[in-house]
Amino acid sequence: MEKYVVGIDLGGTKICCAVADLKGNIKAQTTLATLAHEGEGAVLARMILAVETVMKEINAPLEDIKAIGIGSPGPLDAEKGIIVTTPNLPFKNFNIVNPMTERFNVPVYLDNDANVAAIGEYLLGAGKGTKNMVYVTVSTGIGGGAIVNGKIYRGNTSNALEVGHMTIVPDGPRCNCGNLGCAEAVASGTAIAKRAKEAVESKAETSLKNYENVTSYEVFVEASKGDKVAKAILDSCLNYLGITVANIITSFDPEVVIIGGGVSQGGDVVFDKVREVVNTRNFKTMADSCKVLPAGLGTNAGVVGAVALAILETESV
Amino acid sequence: MEKYVVGIDLGGTKICCAVADLKGNIKAQTTLATLAHEGEGAVLARMILAVETVMKEINAPLEDIKAIGIGSPGPLDAEKGIIVTTPNLPFKNFNIVNPMTERFNVPVYLDNDANVAAIGEYLLGAGKGTKNMVYVTVSTGIGGGAIVNGKIYRGNTSNALEVGHMTIVPDGPRCNCGNLGCAEAVASGTAIAKRAKEAVESKAETSLKNYENVTSYEVFVEASKGDKVAKAILDSCLNYLGITVANIITSFDPEVVIIGGGVSQGGDVVFDKVREVVNTRNFKTMADSCKVLPAGLGTNAGVVGAVALAILETESV
Repeated sequence: MEKYVVGIDLGGTKICCAVADLKGNIKAQTTLATLAHEGEGAVLARMILAVETVMKEINAPLEDIKAIGIGSPGPLDAEKGIIVTTPNLPFKNFNIVNPMTERFNVPVYLDNDANVAAIGEYLLGAGKGTKNMVYVTVSTGIGGGAIVNGKIYRGNTSNALEVGHMTIVPDGPRCNCGNLGCAEAVASGTAIAKRAKEAVESKAETSLKNYENVTSYEVFVEASKGDKVAKAILDSCLNYLGITVANIITSFDPEVVIIGGGVSQGGDVVFDKVREVVNTRNFKTMADSCKVLPAGLGTNAGVVGAVALAILETESV
Repeated sequence: MEKYVVGIDLGGTKICCAVADLKGNIKAQTTLATLAHEGEGAVLARMILAVETVMKEINAPLEDIKAIGIGSPGPLDAEKGIIVTTPNLPFKNFNIVNPMTERFNVPVYLDNDANVAAIGEYLLGAGKGTKNMVYVTVSTGIGGGAIVNGKIYRGNTSNALEVGHMTIVPDGPRCNCGNLGCAEAVASGTAIAKRAKEAVESKAETSLKNYENVTSYEVFVEASKGDKVAKAILDSCLNYLGITVANIITSFDPEVVIIGGGVSQGGDVVFDKVREVVNTRNFKTMADSCKVLPAGLGTNAGVVGAVALAILETESV
């Protein structure tokens, strides 16, 4: 009885579902198309089907489930179990937790992608063994989650660690949120690509010129080949990412900052620069005692994080 | 038995000590000169004497003390009870908690000024009734403390909420810590005074000219009289203070940010500007749900905070 937890990574195109033992070892996994256009009820039914499928796969009755964790794009109300709204899913102010609880008769926990990833890294990834850690994801946007005294920290409106919207350059470029100089506007993958596009469209001499729709990936590639313009773009954007991380360290004084998301896959060039800025800008004791590490969970991070959410919330009951 | 807590505010010039009931109502209070030059033992003896004095004043035996809280300038190691070093006190890597515990046979808690003030505001001041709040002190420097889920948050090296050293202007003026553009270098009382001094020494037409050693206080006075240069200085520095507060809200999503310290006594001009920046830069839901309030504890804040430390730590045991 109660031998497993189930994690669901709810995305706009697919629903990933995994069953794991109470230590987080995945026993079976399935992926279904979300088919968001079919509406709230249909997507909910497929989430339920996914749970039933993985339990059938390990030949275990539904009674063996101890808890279910759901990771979803936000904004959402984690405490109430409500998905407020999200561009690629049909749910509008939809309580996703209640019908799941009713169906499976176990505690169901909901949290946003960044928090779920933070919990995953904390329990099963690069943050294992820490008590206070911050996870930052850097891709199209910048988001984050913090573990404080061994628990996810959500804040007053479930928006804590919106670090992508920390002001880094007071008079910097306009962010999608309307503010000027947010971390997301100067240090995200989108920001890197935007700078590259400006360079391509200018008279700058750069090998980036070959690309029509330049992305941050191409900037990393051309910089590694020695293109000076690409290198300068990375140097500038990663400097701002370093300041973002340094400000996080100054505020939270964590044991580790874990960086995930597409930009983190730039590897050493990213982590060396961030580390350099942290060493320059943070108090020595804080910089020395805080590791800056790449995320430990790979492409499976979403569903592993959802599993970890179920484990962490069950433990802290 | 165990009817009182004692708070000690340890300063470079004086030791303030108060005894309070378990709700924080001060019953008696005394102040002794620190006489720091007499060394560690002598100052410790005077701290003990101060505790004995306040207990005698209310005619209660020492056995009626439940816990003692000590607020001290940092850096210090709160968990171990050690004052690492501080410019105006004789203690160097000195465990102040052990001898106090031995003398009074009760739990003794130590924390730095900013955390103690945060706890005081949380239990007995403007933060009463909240679960998550951040306290920011803005005077010569800028410091802070956070209550997270009802407990003080110290971080990994006891340096959490060093918000004065958050980078606000990446290429801004040099901070005393060595970094560029820290909040403290652009938004503290010292920063305001420095800008005023530059103005006085320039050809700018300003009524600040009358002062030789201009302070932030004079800038507030002249700005209130309509001096344009003083107004522009305040507008700029308080804008940066607003960004600092906005970044804190983005990171911690607290119910309230409480601002204390000398600069906060500028009143509406300070709080109106900070609020304006928060409304501009923060997500609407976060800005709307987070109050920005002046500190509720007055000149007695240090010793009241030490009393609150004793109460909070006793409660959470």
